[in-house]
Amino acid sequence: MSPPAQAGLIAALREIVGADRCLAREAELVAWECDGLTLHGSRPSAVVLPRDKHEVARVVRACRRFATPFVARGAGTGLSGGAIALDGGVVIECAKLDRILTVDVENRLAVVQPGVVNAALSAAVRPYGLFYAPDPSSQLACTIGGNVAENSGGPHTLKYGTTAHHVLALELVLPDGELLRLGSPTGFAPGVDLVGAVVGSEGTLGVVVEATVRLTPIPEATETLLAIFPDVVSACRAVGAVITSGLVPAAMEIVDRRTIAAVEASVYAAGLPLDAGAVLLVELDGPAEALPGQVERIRALCAAEGARVERARDEAERERFWRARKGAFGAMGRIAPDLYVHDAVVPRAKLPEVLERVGEICDRRGLRLANVFHAGDGNLHPNISFDRRDPDELARVLAAGREILEACVAAGGVISGEHGIGTEKRDYMCLVFAEDDLDAQRRLRAAFDPDGVCNPGKVLPTPRFCAEANPKARGYDRVPL
Amino acid sequence: MSPPAQAGLIAALREIVGADRCLAREAELVAWECDGLTLHGSRPSAVVLPRDKHEVARVVRACRRFATPFVARGAGTGLSGGAIALDGGVVIECAKLDRILTVDVENRLAVVQPGVVNAALSAAVRPYGLFYAPDPSSQLACTIGGNVAENSGGPHTLKYGTTAHHVLALELVLPDGELLRLGSPTGFAPGVDLVGAVVGSEGTLGVVVEATVRLTPIPEATETLLAIFPDVVSACRAVGAVITSGLVPAAMEIVDRRTIAAVEASVYAAGLPLDAGAVLLVELDGPAEALPGQVERIRALCAAEGARVERARDEAERERFWRARKGAFGAMGRIAPDLYVHDAVVPRAKLPEVLERVGEICDRRGLRLANVFHAGDGNLHPNISFDRRDPDELARVLAAGREILEACVAAGGVISGEHGIGTEKRDYMCLVFAEDDLDAQRRLRAAFDPDGVCNPGKVLPTPRFCAEANPKARGYDRVPL
Repeated sequence: MSPPAQAGLIAALREIVGADRCLAREAELVAWECDGLTLHGSRPSAVVLPRDKHEVARVVRACRRFATPFVARGAGTGLSGGAIALDGGVVIECAKLDRILTVDVENRLAVVQPGVVNAALSAAVRPYGLFYAPDPSSQLACTIGGNVAENSGGPHTLKYGTTAHHVLALELVLPDGELLRLGSPTGFAPGVDLVGAVVGSEGTLGVVVEATVRLTPIPEATETLLAIFPDVVSACRAVGAVITSGLVPAAMEIVDRRTIAAVEASVYAAGLPLDAGAVLLVELDGPAEALPGQVERIRALCAAEGARVERARDEAERERFWRARKGAFGAMGRIAPDLYVHDAVVPRAKLPEVLERVGEICDRRGLRLANVFHAGDGNLHPNISFDRRDPDELARVLAAGREILEACVAAGGVISGEHGIGTEKRDYMCLVFAEDDLDAQRRLRAAFDPDGVCNPGKVLPTPRFCAEANPKARGYDRVPL
Repeated sequence: MSPPAQAGLIAALREIVGADRCLAREAELVAWECDGLTLHGSRPSAVVLPRDKHEVARVVRACRRFATPFVARGAGTGLSGGAIALDGGVVIECAKLDRILTVDVENRLAVVQPGVVNAALSAAVRPYGLFYAPDPSSQLACTIGGNVAENSGGPHTLKYGTTAHHVLALELVLPDGELLRLGSPTGFAPGVDLVGAVVGSEGTLGVVVEATVRLTPIPEATETLLAIFPDVVSACRAVGAVITSGLVPAAMEIVDRRTIAAVEASVYAAGLPLDAGAVLLVELDGPAEALPGQVERIRALCAAEGARVERARDEAERERFWRARKGAFGAMGRIAPDLYVHDAVVPRAKLPEVLERVGEICDRRGLRLANVFHAGDGNLHPNISFDRRDPDELARVLAAGREILEACVAAGGVISGEHGIGTEKRDYMCLVFAEDDLDAQRRLRAAFDPDGVCNPGKVLPTPRFCAEANPKARGYDRVPL
């Protein structure tokens, strides 16, 4: 953008939100240059902090007048570069849209602005015996708007589903600046389900300015088990046995040997045996009478795979068990300055073979790998510790990343479970989609955003990239007439 | 279509599927003139019965060559006219696409063709301890393809959700004849969620030729309660009390006094007291140890609203209880030759006042109303018995229908819960959507079907219809810049 156009844009934005809520000086913009994926960065031309949906709509219209793209951003905890502004775009920071507008206990729903922090919503409705079920690991910081954009999951996705299962209605500022309501608080919406299309679209169809979400009764009782296995393969087999038995735990999380070592060497130390091959954390919730029987069944299924099983006797012990899982990312920070948190999904039954392959890929390249993962969902998080200042190591990390995704796809999986595509995996979309499939997604996106101003450069690769990169993609049937 | 063009189309279709699977004689077409909504009818130019997805794709391409619209059809049990071919279109009857392709027990999923009957899928996976959860009342006849099109619910939607919650992936023939795969068997699909957009789109975005659906473990135990209330308002209050208590029954169904009378006078007689104001059927399922406590809590909550509660002691008694609910539509056939089964959703807390208003609307017009409904979901089914040969009564039925929908929308509800919009409610979409909202849905549809050949004339009213019919619609915010 030319300097006069840039000045005109900033003036227009300041007129809408006031000078104190429109940041445009270089020093002010630094914090918005990247998100949780620190590898990718891009400086926005401005950051605005609107206070209501009408300000959002006016900001979007101003951006259009100056032919400038925009991106909505919550807490910036996303791990795929989805919340950075490419091409000198404007960041619409939703931090000040942080009000819970309605809590409707009888109909079990809440209406919130997008900047409400995930854990704050659960805290606010706890007095009514309710909670907001999706619980991404970043839930103390991340916001509902970001959760909607990424269709966030979390450890309890196994029983409760992802964000998509908990969003009843949305209000959206479309890329043309109009407000649009989608869905219905009743959970039944006639016509084409645009809520389903918007949840998980990574901010590419518009800016969510209000979300009506389902609240869930807090389960009467919870039991947390920690099963210590000789190796990760037997832990995976136990997960399969639990699922096949018909039990539906709230969470089943595996932490591997290398992660245990990192956690035990850190402030998160949970007293795990360092010689364990893997630990499996199982959480059960539901009516108090039902849990003792389920605990015994889980215990037996894990023991059959060679595990020793501990049961949390109180809340303190439950927190200690979870520390092994939740402290993993923090603990990894001791190993190397940078951490690449990967995210992919494979059919549950394929977990052992894919984990072995991931280990082999990293070993071959001399990379430090540790695995923590949502085993019940088949959602892997191979974490690679590295130092980005070492260009050779960085290159090996990126090459291993691609190979890991290829291995997951070859096993019938997909390239993202909960972290999104963003800029990170845009060019890997061709691993799972053929050019025609991507075109269908492009057409839907263009129906909302014909001029490509709403978080451009994310999710979908540029046309023809895939055809060149991967001419065969998946073997789709072409139909002769 | 001119007779020569028509002959050319039929010849092309016969070349694809063979003469015996292409019906075009007047006498053969009668059965496809209407669906479960017998009020609306339209004769197709042909009915084809493809045997595989490639035949479907070739049929779609042939239709395009002859500029003829097409509509996919399952068992035709839909209640909103969604499966009839308008404008002399071709019906693609999916009855012969009835194979279960894969049952993957370990990953709890099945891959099926669209013509698989809903109940047949559950029967096929029962030996593995699994079932397919969505259970529309027509489940002995209706097909998975139709369920996907309508996002079908059923009595157990309260706990298990609608079809959208159980579809992992789809394969679709697009309106241009190309095959497209959407979603992923893992349940995690990167990019824009087109599965969510297709489920519930009533066959307007393409023809589903394969569905990958989630299977659910059969619950260990089931309890069925029948609570007999002095009036329908106290039954509704009990439903609210159960929900607020944090219990999540599998089903909560209310049958009103007039429905009881019809059922008891029919072959479905379930031994219900004729002086009951309403009965509430509550089904609980889950771990065996958990149910006795829940049964007692439900009993107490119902008793507090004046109910007498019976508990099914065996499977025969459970079936008797359900007969009151499931026999309702059949029993109504004794009262008058025609039955208009309405479908709308209101916030649960508004049930008593809306039911009263619905009763008043029908009484004022001298119409015979009976209510059976998914009370836990707020999903009403006011049923009006009538004789369509009486034009005056028919006019009153249609006028009451519109007024009922208006009352539901005024109470914060929507115009369809599970039966869809189809032709029936197309022109009522403006009750809930403003012209801009409908435009967003039209844009999405055009992204799939730019030429409007895929089940045209359904779901969305023609542009400007709404503006003329209801210039104010809902009070959407218009944003001044």
